[in-house]
Amino acid sequence: MIAIDLQGKLIAFEGIDTSGKSTQARLLVKRLSGSGLDVVSTVEPGGTSIGEAARAIVLSRPGVHSAMLPFSELLLFMISRAQNTHEVILPALQAGKTVVVSRYRMSSEAYQGYGRGIDLDLVRDLNHHATQGLRPHVTFLIDISAETAVNRKTTEHDRIEIETLEFHRRVRQGFLELSALDPNAVVIDGDRDLGEIAEDVARYLQV
Amino acid sequence: MIAIDLQGKLIAFEGIDTSGKSTQARLLVKRLSGSGLDVVSTVEPGGTSIGEAARAIVLSRPGVHSAMLPFSELLLFMISRAQNTHEVILPALQAGKTVVVSRYRMSSEAYQGYGRGIDLDLVRDLNHHATQGLRPHVTFLIDISAETAVNRKTTEHDRIEIETLEFHRRVRQGFLELSALDPNAVVIDGDRDLGEIAEDVARYLQV
Repeated sequence: MIAIDLQGKLIAFEGIDTSGKSTQARLLVKRLSGSGLDVVSTVEPGGTSIGEAARAIVLSRPGVHSAMLPFSELLLFMISRAQNTHEVILPALQAGKTVVVSRYRMSSEAYQGYGRGIDLDLVRDLNHHATQGLRPHVTFLIDISAETAVNRKTTEHDRIEIETLEFHRRVRQGFLELSALDPNAVVIDGDRDLGEIAEDVARYLQV
Repeated sequence: MIAIDLQGKLIAFEGIDTSGKSTQARLLVKRLSGSGLDVVSTVEPGGTSIGEAARAIVLSRPGVHSAMLPFSELLLFMISRAQNTHEVILPALQAGKTVVVSRYRMSSEAYQGYGRGIDLDLVRDLNHHATQGLRPHVTFLIDISAETAVNRKTTEHDRIEIETLEFHRRVRQGFLELSALDPNAVVIDGDRDLGEIAEDVARYLQV
């Protein structure tokens, strides 16, 4: 059975680093493709030529660029989002495909708004321009505690991954508050077996 | 005699490509330094590590990056401005130096606002954040016609330089309208001998 009501819809996965959102996005893409849907999978930052160039700056190793301002960090993510929305997401949706994205508007509000302390109105205004007003049909927040995230970390950290436990606590809190206010957001306990989480996602989408 | 009232002040040069603004900036720096002032010279986009990375994207040759959105172009210039203001301009001004910059807030309003058609309120809001509210003590608009600009062009054009005559006409018109509304802007006829223009600038600053 094809989940026909997911055609032309955008599904976003959100969460702090190591929450497993990208894995869940991958599992969902596989499941939807298996059920006969035409699915496009994309990740932010990145996904386009300009988005990759922005990603290389914003997720550089610590010390590559001196003192990146939170404002610049925000704008680099927005550039990537604008290009990805315009070049990849909107054309796919318009062609009736289902798009699954790992990180979208909520990440900027949680990381740069709650985490870095940038005025949320500015973040929302830029999100509106970057997405051309597009909002996900469903946003799955894969929620884990900041402590779990820090414990799951391995090596090779980028500028944002090396942030403090306190920073990741603010970001997680942001994700939870934003999800509570978003009627299309679903919070999923990410501190469980991958398969269980994937089942929750599938059950919600009825696929 | 030291022009003591220029200590801790920012002087901006603006104008369309090939207007001669960078040359005039250089001539003024030389003159002010010669009169005993401690002068810092800077250019946008660029001037910092992140600014140079943004410049490499936004002023790439045509075809390097597919379809850069006007919104992304705007944000790349703003990243460069934010870092330049924070890392170079504000510390120099706070140390009592005179800063001369080639292109600043007015360029984004003229190019991305008037030229690309982006909402001027968005451009101004981002300028406000990028500059931390800083405005030049004086902005010199070196004004030439779009036709003169196109005729002065040589080879090796970047993404913005290859724009049409019509685009450069809109940008020039934008610079003139913005200058008319800015009490600290001075319009200087750029279709003259370099030395004459430099004398006008010096006379205005009484140096």
